[in-house]
Parts: sequence; structure tokens; C-alpha cells
Amino acid sequence: MNPFDNISPLDYRYYGRDKDVFAKLSPYLSEEARIRYQLRTELALVKVLARRRICPASVVGEVEKAIGKITANDVYEGEDRIKHDVRALANCIRERVSDKAKPYVHFTATSYDIVNTSVAARFRDFTMDVLVPEMLQLEKALIAIALREKGTLQIGRTHGQHAEPITFGFAISEYVSRFGHAIESVSIAGDDLRGKFSGAVGAYNASALFFSDPEKFEAEVLNELGIKPATHSTQVSEPEYVADYMHSVVSAFGVIANLADDMRHLQRSEIAEVGESFDRAQVGSSTMPHKRNPINFENVKSMWKVFMPMMGTVYMDQISEHQRDLTNSASARFLPELLAGFYVSVRRMRKTMEKLIVDTGSLRRNFEKNRDMIVAEPIYIILAASNHPDAHEYVKQLTLEAQQTGERLVDLLYSDKSVQPYLSKLTGRQKEMLSDPEKYTGIASKKTESVCAFWKKKLRI
Amino acid sequence: MNPFDNISPLDYRYYGRDKDVFAKLSPYLSEEARIRYQLRTELALVKVLARRRICPASVVGEVEKAIGKITANDVYEGEDRIKHDVRALANCIRERVSDKAKPYVHFTATSYDIVNTSVAARFRDFTMDVLVPEMLQLEKALIAIALREKGTLQIGRTHGQHAEPITFGFAISEYVSRFGHAIESVSIAGDDLRGKFSGAVGAYNASALFFSDPEKFEAEVLNELGIKPATHSTQVSEPEYVADYMHSVVSAFGVIANLADDMRHLQRSEIAEVGESFDRAQVGSSTMPHKRNPINFENVKSMWKVFMPMMGTVYMDQISEHQRDLTNSASARFLPELLAGFYVSVRRMRKTMEKLIVDTGSLRRNFEKNRDMIVAEPIYIILAASNHPDAHEYVKQLTLEAQQTGERLVDLLYSDKSVQPYLSKLTGRQKEMLSDPEKYTGIASKKTESVCAFWKKKLRI
Amino acid sequence: MNPFDNISPLDYRYYGRDKDVFAKLSPYLSEEARIRYQLRTELALVKVLARRRICPASVVGEVEKAIGKITANDVYEGEDRIKHDVRALANCIRERVSDKAKPYVHFTATSYDIVNTSVAARFRDFTMDVLVPEMLQLEKALIAIALREKGTLQIGRTHGQHAEPITFGFAISEYVSRFGHAIESVSIAGDDLRGKFSGAVGAYNASALFFSDPEKFEAEVLNELGIKPATHSTQVSEPEYVADYMHSVVSAFGVIANLADDMRHLQRSEIAEVGESFDRAQVGSSTMPHKRNPINFENVKSMWKVFMPMMGTVYMDQISEHQRDLTNSASARFLPELLAGFYVSVRRMRKTMEKLIVDTGSLRRNFEKNRDMIVAEPIYIILAASNHPDAHEYVKQLTLEAQQTGERLVDLLYSDKSVQPYLSKLTGRQKEMLSDPEKYTGIASKKTESVCAFWKKKLRI
Amino acid sequence: MNPFDNISPLDYRYYGRDKDVFAKLSPYLSEEARIRYQLRTELALVKVLARRRICPASVVGEVEKAIGKITANDVYEGEDRIKHDVRALANCIRERVSDKAKPYVHFTATSYDIVNTSVAARFRDFTMDVLVPEMLQLEKALIAIALREKGTLQIGRTHGQHAEPITFGFAISEYVSRFGHAIESVSIAGDDLRGKFSGAVGAYNASALFFSDPEKFEAEVLNELGIKPATHSTQVSEPEYVADYMHSVVSAFGVIANLADDMRHLQRSEIAEVGESFDRAQVGSSTMPHKRNPINFENVKSMWKVFMPMMGTVYMDQISEHQRDLTNSASARFLPELLAGFYVSVRRMRKTMEKLIVDTGSLRRNFEKNRDMIVAEPIYIILAASNHPDAHEYVKQLTLEAQQTGERLVDLLYSDKSVQPYLSKLTGRQKEMLSDPEKYTGIASKKTESVCAFWKKKLRI
Repeated sequence: MNPFDNISPLDYRYYGRDKDVFAKLSPYLSEEARIRYQLRTELALVKVLARRRICPASVVGEVEKAIGKITANDVYEGEDRIKHDVRALANCIRERVSDKAKPYVHFTATSYDIVNTSVAARFRDFTMDVLVPEMLQLEKALIAIALREKGTLQIGRTHGQHAEPITFGFAISEYVSRFGHAIESVSIAGDDLRGKFSGAVGAYNASALFFSDPEKFEAEVLNELGIKPATHSTQVSEPEYVADYMHSVVSAFGVIANLADDMRHLQRSEIAEVGESFDRAQVGSSTMPHKRNPINFENVKSMWKVFMPMMGTVYMDQISEHQRDLTNSASARFLPELLAGFYVSVRRMRKTMEKLIVDTGSLRRNFEKNRDMIVAEPIYIILAASNHPDAHEYVKQLTLEAQQTGERLVDLLYSDKSVQPYLSKLTGRQKEMLSDPEKYTGIASKKTESVCAFWKKKLRI
Repeated sequence: MNPFDNISPLDYRYYGRDKDVFAKLSPYLSEEARIRYQLRTELALVKVLARRRICPASVVGEVEKAIGKITANDVYEGEDRIKHDVRALANCIRERVSDKAKPYVHFTATSYDIVNTSVAARFRDFTMDVLVPEMLQLEKALIAIALREKGTLQIGRTHGQHAEPITFGFAISEYVSRFGHAIESVSIAGDDLRGKFSGAVGAYNASALFFSDPEKFEAEVLNELGIKPATHSTQVSEPEYVADYMHSVVSAFGVIANLADDMRHLQRSEIAEVGESFDRAQVGSSTMPHKRNPINFENVKSMWKVFMPMMGTVYMDQISEHQRDLTNSASARFLPELLAGFYVSVRRMRKTMEKLIVDTGSLRRNFEKNRDMIVAEPIYIILAASNHPDAHEYVKQLTLEAQQTGERLVDLLYSDKSVQPYLSKLTGRQKEMLSDPEKYTGIASKKTESVCAFWKKKLRI
Repeated sequence: MNPFDNISPLDYRYYGRDKDVFAKLSPYLSEEARIRYQLRTELALVKVLARRRICPASVVGEVEKAIGKITANDVYEGEDRIKHDVRALANCIRERVSDKAKPYVHFTATSYDIVNTSVAARFRDFTMDVLVPEMLQLEKALIAIALREKGTLQIGRTHGQHAEPITFGFAISEYVSRFGHAIESVSIAGDDLRGKFSGAVGAYNASALFFSDPEKFEAEVLNELGIKPATHSTQVSEPEYVADYMHSVVSAFGVIANLADDMRHLQRSEIAEVGESFDRAQVGSSTMPHKRNPINFENVKSMWKVFMPMMGTVYMDQISEHQRDLTNSASARFLPELLAGFYVSVRRMRKTMEKLIVDTGSLRRNFEKNRDMIVAEPIYIILAASNHPDAHEYVKQLTLEAQQTGERLVDLLYSDKSVQPYLSKLTGRQKEMLSDPEKYTGIASKKTESVCAFWKKKLRI
Repeated sequence: MNPFDNISPLDYRYYGRDKDVFAKLSPYLSEEARIRYQLRTELALVKVLARRRICPASVVGEVEKAIGKITANDVYEGEDRIKHDVRALANCIRERVSDKAKPYVHFTATSYDIVNTSVAARFRDFTMDVLVPEMLQLEKALIAIALREKGTLQIGRTHGQHAEPITFGFAISEYVSRFGHAIESVSIAGDDLRGKFSGAVGAYNASALFFSDPEKFEAEVLNELGIKPATHSTQVSEPEYVADYMHSVVSAFGVIANLADDMRHLQRSEIAEVGESFDRAQVGSSTMPHKRNPINFENVKSMWKVFMPMMGTVYMDQISEHQRDLTNSASARFLPELLAGFYVSVRRMRKTMEKLIVDTGSLRRNFEKNRDMIVAEPIYIILAASNHPDAHEYVKQLTLEAQQTGERLVDLLYSDKSVQPYLSKLTGRQKEMLSDPEKYTGIASKKTESVCAFWKKKLRI
């Protein structure tokens, strides 16, 4: 098959063509992987049957050997014939084991015992083996920038307007903290996905025919895959665990989308405080060769726009009539797209941030633009604290005067006799702030350090 | 590439594995198709250049021959080197034409002149060549059922409760009408997608260097592909045309999702008025072989849940800063998934409806269940019309009495002297309704005919 | 009731407290209005009954007088007793008319004949009387800016990077065109909402008891309100008409959200090309009195974020089981929130744009920043057109050299002997572009004029 | 103000008109409450200032007294003048305290220190005081039904088809478990909302002027309200805490929407296993007085459709440029609508479930419908376990034969000599299942008990 015959951009572009990404994701998120995990769940079942002496110990080896040879293609060919995917899967195994072993394959199981449990296991494995490690790499890259730039002066912005000074490291530490929190959430939710082995309607109807302790039997089978059962299940396990997991992923996606937006805007021609590093061979624009376009940040934001709305699908899939309707069957197959979309975005963000160029000249130049006005806030606060009756209005008029006359705000302040009584109470540090606004960064640098230290410890990186 | 290495269920399951579907969709929705349409747009450009004698006529033949040989793979290999997709495309052509022809390839074009225009052309072609014809097939199947069953009595339901009688054909004619309307909307919106050839920021900066009538030049290039320009464009054409088109598709998807839900519920064990036809080789359930599961209707509903939320992506992509940011670039690549998802669902619905089994026995049995109560409405209406002071309350009490005593409502009515003055005014037809509630179907049959005739004429089928 | 006891920000803040907004919206979007339109629909019914001589002509006058006295409160008190809203409404009328008139109130109607039809009428009236006129006011304001600033040089931006020059009027003309198109769409969809008078399950069961032409009867009743029937209806009319209308509104909302984002970003401290006009008494920030925050543009974007997702509700409400389940009843009550949210945003946008400050100094200063680099594109295009074998790479190297040496790009070009053969072919106008990049605005000014003229004519403003 | 002049159905219908609901919600979710919590946050500030001896102890009393008198209306009148809400709030306090106290009001605070912290406190209080208690009431009602009906036979359904038997109590225990889990999630997320007191850009610029330990100062102020600070903040605290909270609410909403759907469908005329209890005065339908419509279940589902999509707003609001843009300001004001919508739905669900009518006759009748076929699954499983070579196909043929001949499946089985060898191995309990399918309920009853016990303990109810 020509990969460009595919329709999904993941398959033909973002995942399928990137060898590294493919190597990371295909063992978990491809259809081949989906089948593989289902086979492993069937194996888990016979292992427990053997341990409980329901079937001979040799069945385990037979099944293990059989599933090693079965491909997705085998299962699909079976499904083409009998129009049932999980039964085709069980048939694939049965055809490859002895008659003695056959009855124990899929023993007492309903299809979704296999499907649900294997989804939980592969999403969990994907989270722990691939996604969280990649997220941690990005977190490390962010921490490195934050600490390196903890003292690099930047004008803080609210409403897109210059506000009070911070440092560039402090700005990045926002994302150290939010993304650190996101890693925690994704880990917890990814490690708490639930399987089930309770039969077609959840009452252990079939397994109770053979076991006096069907819930214990269920727990043993799931334990083979390191998965816990839901407190209750119908044909499917409680959907809220998957919803929590997908929410944790979408929320984490929002964090890097926000980072991407921040970086994109800081890269604007007029701001130019950061830049994606530029590969000499790269064509920035087909007709404007001088541009340095934030294509990676744009891509991350764009992918977020693709996948964020998918939570609507997840929430609708919470609802399934009675012991289950199957209107959540096809839709559940699409969830790996969201996981893959997030993974490639984290990876892209990491690579881009690792090579991020910080333009200290621009940072300084932008800061200088409103340098004098920045002291308006501390003046106001200090006057107010010193019991000035209407500090806010006073400072507002002062700033208008400064704008009209072109004089420095602080000079106007000191030359206004009416406020001298208040100014005389200023501490040395407070006076210093007024004349030297770049010192008015609060505890930006120290906070950057503590935020980084907090998350390094918490995430053990 | 093993197709089961793919992540998207479209690629490995719903589109990629179905030869017929693949043959229908790949010429429009695959990445190969995306590249092909871009090449055609480049060809359209040189055709107009030749017609305007900007370039020699021979260039057209050269480019036509060149693009016949270029595959998506060629373009991607170029992109791998220079990191720009559309420039790689132009290079692929240039490398295959004479030096004389080279300058006219991509002449004055910006990337999105090519991308935007070719998206409009291929979505339009997909709509007209593939999607609408398939929708019309489903419409025909619905019309056939509606007319065949126009007189088949069914109890109408509101709140899931038996209400007043209709016919099964009338119930289907709802979808004849709604889906007919949807076909119209998809056709109109799909035929009104807009391209652009106005350069990097929409002001025709480049083309105005060479043409005194750049808007006319734009219109000529687009006309080669049968596409009109937007009234205004920036780097991209106005996004509302695509939003309208996607809305028309999602709204149409809602119609068949509703039909699927209706059929699914009519197939419930207790209702059993319809059934998906059952293939003898098919496994309905892995452990409950007697079940007849509405898997196709469930699938259609499930696909709707996947793709309906994608409108969120479309609406977010309306917003692009200034003459364009590129946060709508990756996301626009995913739109063909929605189109493919809708197409396969229409197709599945058509096939399922074509073989729909209507169980007249169940229809009758369900109708009989509340046969006597059904006359409550006409009694109430006739009494009210006859000036009964409190017809509603009277009938309510009468129904409670009927429920408690087990007597027929109509018998209670006729044996109640107090209402005889009202009953004496009844017309023969009204009397008939009261004793024979299956006649109380209003104009269900006639309406079915007129709805079908209306849409047959309007859609020319 | 204290308005601040309300929960919805519309009620306590954006609509309820603004006298002008309240006066505009309450006759259509309040609950009082909802009831009023239902009463009018009941009146429409008796008018047709009288015309058809089913009831005496005097009944019309009685009902007209009665509904003039009925308030929402009356209906709600009735509903509190009998737990049914539309029956309570009918009772309110019946209690206020003679016994002779009573039977004709709500004659043959089902609740949703009244509800559906009155929703169509009031949304249509709201659209035509209030929403479209306000949209046209904004359109006029945009046209005024576009024409006034059609020649005001601005650097065009893509990826947030300086690209090619346009004019500020041209940038605004994008919104003249997109919003003009939006006005058309909203008008068309708002004027095509459908009512129904086909009874409880859509088969005219009740009305066919009394009329031989129930569809004609339906059309006559709806015509009293200027509304057309759906081609088919069940208990409700086809939901796609409302979906199309809501889509038109949400899509239009996206246009002004995009405009708000553009203006917001142009107001950034570093760009400062536009400003919201600043009221002297206004407090921009509680502690940074010098800031000029784009609060109105932020508000519009924020409201879009509230209401855009509501399309999810609309799409889910397309699906209603059989002849109707009522899971779309409460949700439909919320649609006026979306309409109100859009209206207040259009109004806010109009007021803000009417007073928009355009800072030509900043526009010029920003343009100058990359003045020399801007010619890269025309150089490349002209060289390519002149058959330079690798114009793109050549210009790219030239720009890197210009950046490194600080020399002007155009000087480097003219001093490079290798390209003189190409340059010798330049027309006078082409040469002018290279030395004077502010002339490289394509047809920005002319296009602005034609776009404005087009929409002025089309919208008759 | 006439409450029916409102636009939001919450304000005029679901919350504003219901005295009990109003009493519960207005102290937390109204605009009056919003202002009240902001005032409390200002009070918390002066308390800490006094404790730290920055201001005299008497200031606390002054401010406490002042805020007791301030209404939302006072603040809004101030905002009308100065166009800034939080400054107007601070002014309201200042105007009501002595000159000595004035400087300490809002000391070093930025608006969002107040807004963000007070939102966290009131959502937390709402969660703990009102929402979770109401959720627990519903949970108790569900547990009561589950335990009461733990032995009531019901046919389990998948695909809407009869599958294997369960009990009605077991079906309800699904919701005991899922809703129990939801209560936990809402409690945890609602108790982990974060405030901030770190100034305009999050670097404690202002407070660091006066305190050497501004983070400790922040923690002390927040602690007055029982709120913790975010690990990092900008002008706002990390948005993921609110996103997690809203997700927990929307996910919980999905659980009751699912329950509503299940009950609605069980109430269908043909199934009729449950019913909403019917008030004699209630009008079920305006023209079909005999219907028993599931209006409360429909309402809950409908409200879910309104509010589920709001997560799109929440996710978009995660993204705020730099130290904050204010495009999340208006939108955040709408979040209480979601909370109110969920609360009224939980409450409605509780009231409806408390009076739920379970029709054991219908449950039995529906079970009997496929009584004989139900044993197909145990037959298949037992044969397979007994090493039948093709049990699935065998049973499938057997069921077809039973359907064609009308004979009981179990009779056909016992009369088929070929399977006697397998049947001879059956245990007594297994044989019993085959002849008495109502015993084939697995551990439905026991599981119901354990699920209820688990959640009673975990939730301490």
C-alpha cells in the first residue's frame, strides 16, 4: 500500500513517515498493536486457567506460541468471513492450538472482556513507556530554559500591553509548572484505566458457571496485564476512567498550545524576543525568503484545534443504553488518533524549545519602550500605602502629564511638592525601584528557581 | 507499508480495506489526490499564461506531461530536503521541464494560491462526483421504502410512548424530506467553494507586477478548474465557504444518525418492527448466537459522534490573525477524514436500508397494545369542538376509568349519557375513527406520496 | 427580583442592565416574548378558523383582547398547577373568552404546533428587526474605515511576520467582505425558519378530522405569521432549518471574533497601530494606570468562546427518536442566549470600531522596520520571470548577505553583475517597486473600493 | 425586574422560580454572591495585614462592617462611573471606612488576586455545601433502589437486544458505582481549586515591595478562605484546576444523562419496566391524556446537551497569551450556568428516582419473551468447556432450529444424541441453569450488595 493513499494526515505525514515516531507509536497505537494486545489478553486468560488447574499447564505454551504468529491481517481475513472481529481473533488462536487446548481459548469470555481490558493495557503502556517519558523530556527542556534565563529581564504583558517586569525564565516557569502538573495528571489517569472480565452484561453469568469466585478470577486475569477491574461493569467497564484519561491529555495539550501561542507571538516581527532556530536549507516562504516563520509553534496550535473537540466524542461515548449499546464501538477506535496527535505535538514542541533562540537585545529594547511608565504601579502602591487619599487618580493624572510633556514619570513625581510627605517615608529599596524599574521584578528569579526545583523533585527528573 | 500499521480507523478499516470505497475516495481524499490537484492547479496557471501569451504555448504541454509523472512521494522527498511543501511541488515540475518553461511554473503564485484553490476543486469534485451520487442512492432507497410502506400501519411515538397512528412509510418519509434537503444543501455548498490567486497577502502584489488586471487573471486561472474566487482574500480565501460546506455535511450526518437511532430502537427485542437483514455466516455475538444486533445502525451513530465535534475545529479555523497565521494549516489537512467518515456512513446506511426487513406482524401487535386508548385524542378533540366545557379533563377521567375497569374507552364514551348531545353531532367519518382507530392516521399515506414526489422532482431522481 | 440574584451574565450584566440592549432584545428573546409569540400563534389559528367559517368572526376579537392581557406570569401560575406549559397557555385564553369561543382556542392543535411556529416567528422577527439592522450598522462602520484608510500603508503579515505591504483599509475590507457575506447568510437562514401545524405526530391526525385540506389549513395559519411550513414534520418541524440559522450566526460570530483578535494584536504595545478610544474616567487597570487595554475586543473574543461550542447542542438536538422524544425541549430554550450573546457582541464591536483610533505613525514605523527586505519578493519574482535559473535560492542568499552586512538589499542587487542581464529587462514600474517598496501594495486600494462598493450594493446600504 | 424579562432559562425557569433551588444556589452562583465573595477576599487581606501589624487591628472591624453593607448594585454603580469592576469594589469599601483604614483596602492587590481567589472559594463552598450533599442524596436514592431490587429479575440488554439475565438492582448498581466515583471526583477537584495573590504578572512585584516573604503572605491571605495557592501564577492562577473541576462536573453529568436515557427507554410503551410517578393533576400531553411521558428523564438529558459542550469554552480558556490576555474574562462569568444546570439536574433526578415505579409484571413479561433463547449462551459455554469441537456453530444452528420449529432450545439439546457425552459431565448447578434460565443471573444480586456497601463506606453515607 502506498502510504500516500491514506486519508489521515497522521498516517501519511505526522506518524507514518517519521521513522522515530513510527517506532515509538506503532507498538501501541496501530491496528496491529490493537490486535497484539487483544492476543495478550487471551493469553492472560489461559495463564490464569492453568494456574487454577482448569486447563493443563501446556495450554499456556501453546497459546503463547500461537499468538506469536498471528497478525492483524489473519484476524481481518477471519472477520471478513464471519463478520465478528473478536470471535475471528479467538478462531485464529484455536486454529493454531491442539484440540485439547481449543476449549480454553476465550473461555467464558465475552468480546468486550478482551477489547476493554486490552485497550486499558495498551493505553497504560503507551502512557508509561512512551508518552510520559516524552513529556518529561519537554519538561526538562523547559526547566533548562527557565533556569538559564531566570535573570533575563522581560516586560510582563497583560492584555498584550506592557505591564510590570518579569524575567524570561519566569515566563517559562509558568509552563514548567503547568506542564509538570499535566504530566502528573496524565500519569495518574493513564495508570488507572480499568479492564473487566465480567461477561456479556457484567453479572459474571458465564464465569459464575465455573467459578465460585468470579470477581477474584477477573482480578487475576487483569492482574496478568497489570490492570485493575472497575468497581462495576456491564458489557464494558465504567467509561469515566477513559474520560478522565482523555481529559488529562486534552488539558495537557492545552498547556502546550498556550506555550505555542506565547512563543508565536513573541516571534512577531515587532516583538522578536524569541525565534525558532532556522535551518539553512529550509524554505521559510515560497516568495518571501527573509521571513522566519514560527511553523512549529503554529503546527502545535493547529493540532490542538484538531483534537481538543474530540472530548465531545468522549463525553457522548459515556452514554450507552442499558448494559450497552454499541454506538461507542467505532468511535472508540479513533481515540488513538488523539493520543498520537498529542505525542507528535509534545515531541515537536520539545525539539523546537531545545533550540529556541532568545534574543536578549529585543527583550531589552521592548522593555525600554515603557521603562518610565512601569514605575506607575509602584508609585501608586507606595503612595496608597503611605495613606495618600487618592493615589490611583493621582498617578493616572501623572502618567497623562508624562505622556503629554515627555518628561519622566519619576521626575514629575519628585518635583511635585504635594507628595513629598509620602515619599519621605520610602525605604531605600522602594526608592531604588522608582529610579531603576528593571529591579521591579518582584521575586521572579527566585520563584523560577523554586518552581523548577519543586517539579524536578516531584517528577524525579 | 502494512495497512494495519496505520492509526486511523479510516485508513486501516473503513476506507483502506474496502476496494469499492477506496476506488471512490482515493482520487479525491487521499494525500496522493491532494498533490494531484495541486499539480492540476499549477497546470491551470500555465494554461492561462499561454493563452495570454506570457509564455509560449509549448509550456502547457511540457507541464502537462511533467505533472503526469509526479507522485506524492516525489514531492515529499523534495519537502524533506527544503522543508517547504508547495515549493517542493513547484521544483518537481521545474525539474521535469525545459529551462525555457521553468520560469512560468508557479509564476507570481504564493503557496496558498495553489493549496486553497486545489482544495476547493477537489472537495467540489468529490461532492459532485462521489458524495452527492451516493446520497442520492440512499435517498432513492428511502423513497422506495416510503412508497412501499405508505399504507403500513404503525403506532406513532412521542416521548417513546404510543401516541397517534401513522404509517411506516410516513415515518420514513421524514427522512426522505430531511435527507433530500440535506442533499440540496451539500450540493449548493460543495459547488460554491472558493479559490484565490491573489498572492501572499491578498493584494495581488506579485501578479500586479505583470498584469494590469490581476483579478481577471485570477478568475481565469480558477475558471480552468471551474472554481470562483472569493470576493476578498488574504493569503487564504474567506474561510466561511468551507465552514458552510462542512456544516452542510455535519448537518446531513445528523439526519442519518437520527435515522440510525430510529431504526436501532425499532429493532429492540420488545419492539422488533424492523431488522437488519442477517447474513447466515455472520456472528451476531460471540456468546449469544440468537441475537440480531443493529450493528450497522450503531456504526453510523458512532461515526457521527466521531465527526460532529469536528465543527469545533472548523469554527476555530475561521480565526486567523492578520493576513494569516498558519494555525489552520495542519488542521485543514484533517477535513478529508470528516468527508470520508460521512461517505462511508451514507454508503453503509444505503446498503442497510436497501435490505431492511419490515416486520408487519410486530407493527400490528405494537399498534394493538394501546388500540383503545388511541381514540382518546379524537374523542377529546371532537368533544372540544362540539363545545364540551372541559373536554380534556373529561377524557382524562375516562381513560383512567378504562384503565381501571378494563373496558374499552369508546364503550365507556357511548354509555355515558352526559356526552350524548355532543356525540350526536358527529359526522360519519368521525364516528368511524372512534370505532376503528387504525383509520386515525390523518393524511399519512397521502403525505408520504407528496413528500416523495416533491423530492424526486427537486433532486431529479 | 434583584437582577443580581440572576446567574446568567446576560441577565445581570450584558443585557439586563443595558437599557438600550434590553429594549431591543426583550420583545424577542425574553421569556415574556416567548409567551407573547405563542399567544399570537393561538390568535393566528382562530383567525383562520373564522375566515373558514369554522368559528364565528367574533371569536377573533375575543381572543385578541384576551391575549393582550395575559402575561408570562399568568401562564406560569397555570403551569404550576397542571404541569403542562402550552395547555396552561390555552387555558389562560379560554378563561378570558366566552363559552362560545372556548372550543376554538387551540382547536386541533398539539403543543408543538404552537411552540415550533412561534419560535420560527420570533427568531425571524428578531433577525429582521434587530439583528440584521445592527449587523448592517457594523458593516457601515467597517466600510467607512476601509474607504477612509484605503491608502494608508500597512505592512501585511503572515505567520505574524512582516510579509508584503498592503493598506489598512484593505485589511479592514477583508471584514467588510466576510461580514457582508455573513449578513446575507444570517438574513437568508433567519427568513427561512419553518413552522408546522400538523399535530402530535405530523400526520395531521386531528386536523384531518375537520378539514379535507389540512396542509392548506396549516399553510394558512402559518401565513398569518409570515412563516412557511416544513416539507415534512413530525411533532416538530425539520430541525435542519434551525441548525442552518444557528450555524449562520456562529459563523458570523467567528468573523467578528477574528476581527477582534486582529485589532487586539494590532493594539499590542510593540505594534500599536490601532487603539480603542479611551474614556478619561475609565480605569484601564487597577494598578497600571498607563495601560490602554483592548477590553472590548477581548470581550468579543471571549463571548465567541462561550457561544461557539453551543453548535454541539444544536447538532445533538437534530436527533430526536421516532416522531419525537423531548430531549430537545429544555435545550431549545437556551438558544436565545446564543442570539443575545451575538447581538451584544456585534453592538460592542460596532461601537468600538466607530471610535477606532488608527495610529499612522506606528503604521509607518512598523513598515519601515523591514522596508528593505520587502523587496525580496518582487526581486525574486522578477528574476524568475526573467528566466533566472534559481531565483529563489539567489534571493535567499542575498537577504542573508544583507542581514549580515547591513547593506540594502536593492543595492546588493544592483551591484551584482551576474544579474544585470535580468534587470535590464525590467519595466519602469517594476524598477520603481524595487526602490520604493511602499508602492508594492498591488491593487490594495482599488480592491478596497471595489469590495466596499460590492457589499454596499448587495446589502443596499 | 420581572423575572420573565430574563433570557436564560435558568434565571426565569429552572433556578429563579424554584424557591428551594434559589435558596441553595443564590449564595454561591448569583452575581450578588460573586460580589460577596470578592468582598470576603478583601477582608481576608486586611485580616492578614492586621495580624502582620501592617495595619491597625481596628481596620479589620471597619472593613468587616463595611462589606456587610455593600450590595452588588453599589459596586455596579461604581463600575458604571469608572468602567472597572474590581476597582469599583475597592472604592465601595474605601468609601465606607475611615481615612486611616483606606490605604489598606486592596493593599498591593491586583484585580485578579481578588477575582481568582474568590472564584476558587465560592466554587469550593458551592461544591462542599450544596452540590456534593445533593449528589449524595441521589446516591442514597440509587442505593435504596439497588438493594430493594437486587433480586428482581430483568433481562440484560446489549445492542438493545435481549442478552443474559440480570436483576434490576444490579442495573441500578451500575449507577451507584459510576455516580459514587463521580461524587469522589467532584469533591476532590472542587476542594483543590487554587487562588493567587501574586500581583499583576505573577511575580509578586507589588507585594515584594512590602514583604520579604510574599509567597508566605499570599498563602496566609488565601488560607483565610481555606484556599491554597497555585504552584505558579501569572495574573491568573493555573487554569488547569478549574478545567479539572469542570471536567469532573461534566463527566458526572454524563453519568446521570446515561441513567436518564436508560430509564427513558425502559419507560417506552413496549418495555414499560419503570415509570415516573404520575401526579393526578399533571397534564401528560395536551391531546393524549393517557400517556405517561418521561419528562424528567428527558429534561436531564436535554440539560446535559446544553452544558456538555461548554467544556469547549473551558479548554479554550486554558489559553491566555503571555501573563494574560483577557479573552477568558467574560467567558469565565458563564461557568456558574454549568454548575447550576448540573445541580438542578441532579436534584430532578433524585426526586424522580425517589418515586420511581418499578413494574415487576413488565420485567417478568419481557424476560419471558426470550426465556428459552437465553440458555443459548450457557449451552455454548458449557459445551465449549466440555471440549465440543465447534460449540458456537452448533448452538447457532440449534437456535435457528428452535426458531423454525417452535420447540424449546433445551429440549432440542437434550434430544440430540450427539451431544450427550458432553452433557453427562454437567454439574447439578449447570443443569439447573439450562432448565431454569432465570437462575442464570451470575452474581448479580451479590455484586449489587457489594457495590452498594463499597460506596456507602467510601462516601460515608
